[in-house]
Amino acid sequence: MPFELDPSNPFFASAAALRQRFAEDAVARDKAGGRPTAQLRLLKESGLLTLLIPKAHGGQGERWSTVLKIVREFAKVDGSLGHLFGYHFSALQAAHLRGTAEQAADIYRRSAAGNWFWGNTANSFSKSLFGQPVADGYVLNGYRPFTSGSHIADYLHVAWEDRDTNLRHFAAIPADRAGIRVEDDWDGIGQRQTGSGRVNYTNVQVHHDEVFRFRVETAEPYQTLTPFQQQSVLLNVFVGSAQGALLAARDYTVETSRPWIDSGVERHVDDPWIKRVYGDLYIKTQAATQLADDAAAALDEAAARGRDLTEAERGRAAIRIAAANVYAGTIALEVTSQIFEVMGARSATNANGFDRFWRNVRIHTLHNPAEYKTRTVGTWFLTGDYPTPGAFR
Amino acid sequence: MPFELDPSNPFFASAAALRQRFAEDAVARDKAGGRPTAQLRLLKESGLLTLLIPKAHGGQGERWSTVLKIVREFAKVDGSLGHLFGYHFSALQAAHLRGTAEQAADIYRRSAAGNWFWGNTANSFSKSLFGQPVADGYVLNGYRPFTSGSHIADYLHVAWEDRDTNLRHFAAIPADRAGIRVEDDWDGIGQRQTGSGRVNYTNVQVHHDEVFRFRVETAEPYQTLTPFQQQSVLLNVFVGSAQGALLAARDYTVETSRPWIDSGVERHVDDPWIKRVYGDLYIKTQAATQLADDAAAALDEAAARGRDLTEAERGRAAIRIAAANVYAGTIALEVTSQIFEVMGARSATNANGFDRFWRNVRIHTLHNPAEYKTRTVGTWFLTGDYPTPGAFR
Amino acid sequence: MPFELDPSNPFFASAAALRQRFAEDAVARDKAGGRPTAQLRLLKESGLLTLLIPKAHGGQGERWSTVLKIVREFAKVDGSLGHLFGYHFSALQAAHLRGTAEQAADIYRRSAAGNWFWGNTANSFSKSLFGQPVADGYVLNGYRPFTSGSHIADYLHVAWEDRDTNLRHFAAIPADRAGIRVEDDWDGIGQRQTGSGRVNYTNVQVHHDEVFRFRVETAEPYQTLTPFQQQSVLLNVFVGSAQGALLAARDYTVETSRPWIDSGVERHVDDPWIKRVYGDLYIKTQAATQLADDAAAALDEAAARGRDLTEAERGRAAIRIAAANVYAGTIALEVTSQIFEVMGARSATNANGFDRFWRNVRIHTLHNPAEYKTRTVGTWFLTGDYPTPGAFR
Amino acid sequence: MPFELDPSNPFFASAAALRQRFAEDAVARDKAGGRPTAQLRLLKESGLLTLLIPKAHGGQGERWSTVLKIVREFAKVDGSLGHLFGYHFSALQAAHLRGTAEQAADIYRRSAAGNWFWGNTANSFSKSLFGQPVADGYVLNGYRPFTSGSHIADYLHVAWEDRDTNLRHFAAIPADRAGIRVEDDWDGIGQRQTGSGRVNYTNVQVHHDEVFRFRVETAEPYQTLTPFQQQSVLLNVFVGSAQGALLAARDYTVETSRPWIDSGVERHVDDPWIKRVYGDLYIKTQAATQLADDAAAALDEAAARGRDLTEAERGRAAIRIAAANVYAGTIALEVTSQIFEVMGARSATNANGFDRFWRNVRIHTLHNPAEYKTRTVGTWFLTGDYPTPGAFR
Repeated sequence: MPFELDPSNPFFASAAALRQRFAEDAVARDKAGGRPTAQLRLLKESGLLTLLIPKAHGGQGERWSTVLKIVREFAKVDGSLGHLFGYHFSALQAAHLRGTAEQAADIYRRSAAGNWFWGNTANSFSKSLFGQPVADGYVLNGYRPFTSGSHIADYLHVAWEDRDTNLRHFAAIPADRAGIRVEDDWDGIGQRQTGSGRVNYTNVQVHHDEVFRFRVETAEPYQTLTPFQQQSVLLNVFVGSAQGALLAARDYTVETSRPWIDSGVERHVDDPWIKRVYGDLYIKTQAATQLADDAAAALDEAAARGRDLTEAERGRAAIRIAAANVYAGTIALEVTSQIFEVMGARSATNANGFDRFWRNVRIHTLHNPAEYKTRTVGTWFLTGDYPTPGAFR
Repeated sequence: MPFELDPSNPFFASAAALRQRFAEDAVARDKAGGRPTAQLRLLKESGLLTLLIPKAHGGQGERWSTVLKIVREFAKVDGSLGHLFGYHFSALQAAHLRGTAEQAADIYRRSAAGNWFWGNTANSFSKSLFGQPVADGYVLNGYRPFTSGSHIADYLHVAWEDRDTNLRHFAAIPADRAGIRVEDDWDGIGQRQTGSGRVNYTNVQVHHDEVFRFRVETAEPYQTLTPFQQQSVLLNVFVGSAQGALLAARDYTVETSRPWIDSGVERHVDDPWIKRVYGDLYIKTQAATQLADDAAAALDEAAARGRDLTEAERGRAAIRIAAANVYAGTIALEVTSQIFEVMGARSATNANGFDRFWRNVRIHTLHNPAEYKTRTVGTWFLTGDYPTPGAFR
Repeated sequence: MPFELDPSNPFFASAAALRQRFAEDAVARDKAGGRPTAQLRLLKESGLLTLLIPKAHGGQGERWSTVLKIVREFAKVDGSLGHLFGYHFSALQAAHLRGTAEQAADIYRRSAAGNWFWGNTANSFSKSLFGQPVADGYVLNGYRPFTSGSHIADYLHVAWEDRDTNLRHFAAIPADRAGIRVEDDWDGIGQRQTGSGRVNYTNVQVHHDEVFRFRVETAEPYQTLTPFQQQSVLLNVFVGSAQGALLAARDYTVETSRPWIDSGVERHVDDPWIKRVYGDLYIKTQAATQLADDAAAALDEAAARGRDLTEAERGRAAIRIAAANVYAGTIALEVTSQIFEVMGARSATNANGFDRFWRNVRIHTLHNPAEYKTRTVGTWFLTGDYPTPGAFR
Repeated sequence: MPFELDPSNPFFASAAALRQRFAEDAVARDKAGGRPTAQLRLLKESGLLTLLIPKAHGGQGERWSTVLKIVREFAKVDGSLGHLFGYHFSALQAAHLRGTAEQAADIYRRSAAGNWFWGNTANSFSKSLFGQPVADGYVLNGYRPFTSGSHIADYLHVAWEDRDTNLRHFAAIPADRAGIRVEDDWDGIGQRQTGSGRVNYTNVQVHHDEVFRFRVETAEPYQTLTPFQQQSVLLNVFVGSAQGALLAARDYTVETSRPWIDSGVERHVDDPWIKRVYGDLYIKTQAATQLADDAAAALDEAAARGRDLTEAERGRAAIRIAAANVYAGTIALEVTSQIFEVMGARSATNANGFDRFWRNVRIHTLHNPAEYKTRTVGTWFLTGDYPTPGAFR
């Protein structure tokens, strides 16, 4: 079975079962947008939301690579759920990387105990949310765009600029904190249930013990893994989308497509054209999968180094992840568009919903352009220089 | 102004004005699907529906190339209207190619006088509509799929198999003939207002004088131009979609896109990456445009030869049109997907609707696969053999 | 006959006949490098060397497009001869654009009368040849690199920097002027007989009446057509190489190639794979040909405008030529490499010499990188800005 | 250091040292063709020629993956030596797969003891060498084409058709057996020192105990690994060539290339264009490398299964190897051509010899066309069917 995760791993077996459930109404939910409420419930029941939390704190103590392969598995049928699942851990990890040991432990424990789902309102590009220092922390006003997962979150990771110093701060707060309003205005052409619209903050109180003491300006290498996690989630959504699109197209081609009238063959799959295109797309998707596996290993290795992570080690991981991300995005775009040629005209209906794969990948690749990551890789190849850590590097 | 038609040609000026009207709600109509009723009215008012009808019969006496460039112009903003406009003439021409001189003249005259819009229920692939010979002609039962334009048509071009002989017959009949039911079930991912769903025929009477005496089996070369017209309409929808997508993206890039945070430039258009991608896409779109112009000239030349058209002349035109079709489809897919990379993440919303270009091209390229037309061109290049006339050749 | 020039044009007929002569030992001459002496004699006998010289001065009064299509014709079998033939006129035109009317007329007359072949030692990138002003003109010392055609030239176009002012000067001088030494050190992987090595100048006297009064700094638009001619010669070498490679491959495939053992076909040309690849390569080469024709028309139109040429007119021509150049180079590289796949393993011998097409194109595309011309086109598409005239623009 | 083999592996360290020696005159030897005599001596001295021979028989007992990575290492600078080294083992393995246990052991022992280099005259496509059964074995007459390594071999693997039965037989014989004449007529555009020309056999005696009892018609799965080894050698020549070309280009770009005059940068490596192209080519080469590693593991695993290898296990390995082969060839062609664009015009000299990478890959990819291997992969993806074992499958 191409692209199958090792079924002897119980987490992967659980993920594969969830994928089948998610597939049942993935086309309908793509059209509807909004909240994957039933799917969130299934996720909570599966226990997979605590994968990365250490066993000592009530989690499963798994590595990022386990999470990322499950992102991929979900994205085979539903890019939104892959995205949401992956970013859920991004917020959790941010607490770990940016908080004190006590904050991290506390968040781990409470997140595991409460089986929380985390949303992301820490998108780092725009400066639209500002914090006023007050006695007990900050009061936030403004908004965050691209707040994936906030619409179904128990807890939020949030970033803002200090109104006085313009320095960026981060915190973890409950999603039902007074003054938070999820706008539900996500209008993307794909990733329709990610809830990646705007969250408004009106006089939202953030307490001192919720604020991470992390300073971008003085971060140590191990604290700068956030862009790795983000790129990794994205690239595995790409890979999963390519895999899923190819598998769905195969089933349609085998079960439904008719041979072209000039083909001279009885079965569409016997046309040399059809064989070639599927062979070509499989080979490229397989290459993307292997680069993704390598990138996942790179993240595991970097994370395992913890505070000992050197700049050079971080740099090597950055290159491996950037390479996988660029390649996966390119291939996923190619696969999700070309499948139609080998399925035929009747496949391209809204009822079939095969176009959601392309729409998901198309929008998701735009958040960290391949051009710049390609340059990052090229710079390293030419000069040995690693990217300086930053929001997208 | 890139991709502009010669504004001194009054038909092109009229088409450009219509394009601007069509653009106003093109995004909304793409979402709504259904009927472009107001647009049909504008088309009728413009006089462009009689372009191909000889002046002697009340039309404008223009050539196919004029029609095809207007297809392209409409497709810059709305692939459906480009498609509908082009196929309207396909039905008209079929009467000319397949009917008697009297039938053709009669249809021209009445079509011009009534300012008819024609729909197509003569899609040639499937055998799903059958005719029972009766005293005065045929009685039709069954359905036609992919009946573009039938949902807004005054008159229909229809094809069926004779129930007894299995031979294919063609006729032109009024769209409101008793027993015809337009199903309004078009569910394509693109070309949303083409009404390319199913039309049911229940005991529909076709009179003898409505039936064309044409036999596929004994057709002369000039009678086999139908696939040229169809391929030409499609390829100009591709070219127009590429042009329109590129122009729309340019406007968004210039007016709205922000430079990438690592770019070091003030304006997004000053990033070498952005310059390169637009340059590359323009060059390819321009190449597609020139091949499309050559193909339009080929169709004009073939049509002008009339009954004198030789098999070799038909063959040379077939190659020119197939080449343009393959190239246009390939480039249009590339352009309509890549524009997002140079517009950025915020461009990919349903409100902007830029994805309609890709969806339109993606579905429209599936009806006559590039693979087979490429082989047709290759066969000729290798052996000098032209394609035998057929439904898609 | 694909890619055939109109045989009713006597210049094209003459060029086609020469092409056949050049083909006889093109492979051997590619290996030998050095001077195409016999071919130069044939060129002189053909009368084609005076094509661009006005009839009033003893030439044929043809346009650049005639020259460029002959460049293409020669390059079908021998990229060096295409290159040499095209650049021959580049030097002649420089006299016309940069000299006084009297100088131009004198050079035209004498060139026509002497049936001169011109070489180019005015390559504009490097600063390696310097002129000392003396009583009667300049004394030159140093060298010029990339001096195509100088090894077989009667006359040379030469550029140098004034030792005092650092301003660039141009002149036309006889190739046998004392102190000129052609190094015969061209070592390129392709374009082997272009003699594009170094010419040394040791105390070479240039007389006042040989120096053009042209100043780059104050040039009018019509005087800045030199890069158009150079790009046009190059792009037609690309197009001719692609055409010639494809034709040569076709002949080999039809006459010699055997079907692949798993193909199930009797003739290699009946393999769908082979049909597809040839179809694909033909279509792209045809697109390149049409862009090249458009670029040739652009040069003709700009040249015909003469002193009336506006900056905007020059700019539009620059875009058309740059677009054709970029596309032609890209396609020629693809074609000249892919032909081997459809000819098979036995085709790739030095005796067959099919690799010369790729080597010729590969080296020739490097002299004016596609990247920058693509950006030039993109800048115009985005902003309407035309490139400022310069050595490569 | 990109693309570096693990230097703690002594075989890899030895290979890397040899690579440096081979690099010294790789360009000169590419031009000269003929025999890499000094390099063969170095290979013999290195001990690497016995890598695959079991320790019990005097070899190193290594797996195919070790051999293949060394093929790759050599091909970084010299595709011929990579090819020769890899095919050396192909002949050795054939004895193992096709001979009796006694024959294999005998050949292993003697090959290790004599430090033999093996040549291949068992190319399976053509039927041009025939054997007449005689009392003690066969007498061979005819020739073998594409006999890589035979020009420097101590021992030859040979295949012929039985003149009576037309069945194919295989044997291992000394290269100096009476009647064998190496024609030294290899004229390929690349892989210049592989000696892949013709070997003539005139009344060559093959003794019964030299003939393998293997019958293609009744082969068990483990006996059909020969095409895996051949494809694996080829694909690692592709990967090594891509890696080596990219590394050589990088060095030239960093040390020698000048920035383009319109670039606005001081160093060529600071041009976003240069960064992007190197990044892109690195990423693709890295993907090819990972697929090649996976294919090498597949061969190791299949070989380790020995007589227990099932058809399905063989099939899965076939797909992994075919996928890697197709991808590596495609990428190697792209890399070896594109490097020139980022090195610039002055790089493309015969003295630099960078074109040998493309010529090596171009010719080497033709011996087992990507088209058919792609179809093989596609067939499996669509239907689950594995390729039937055969000369190229």
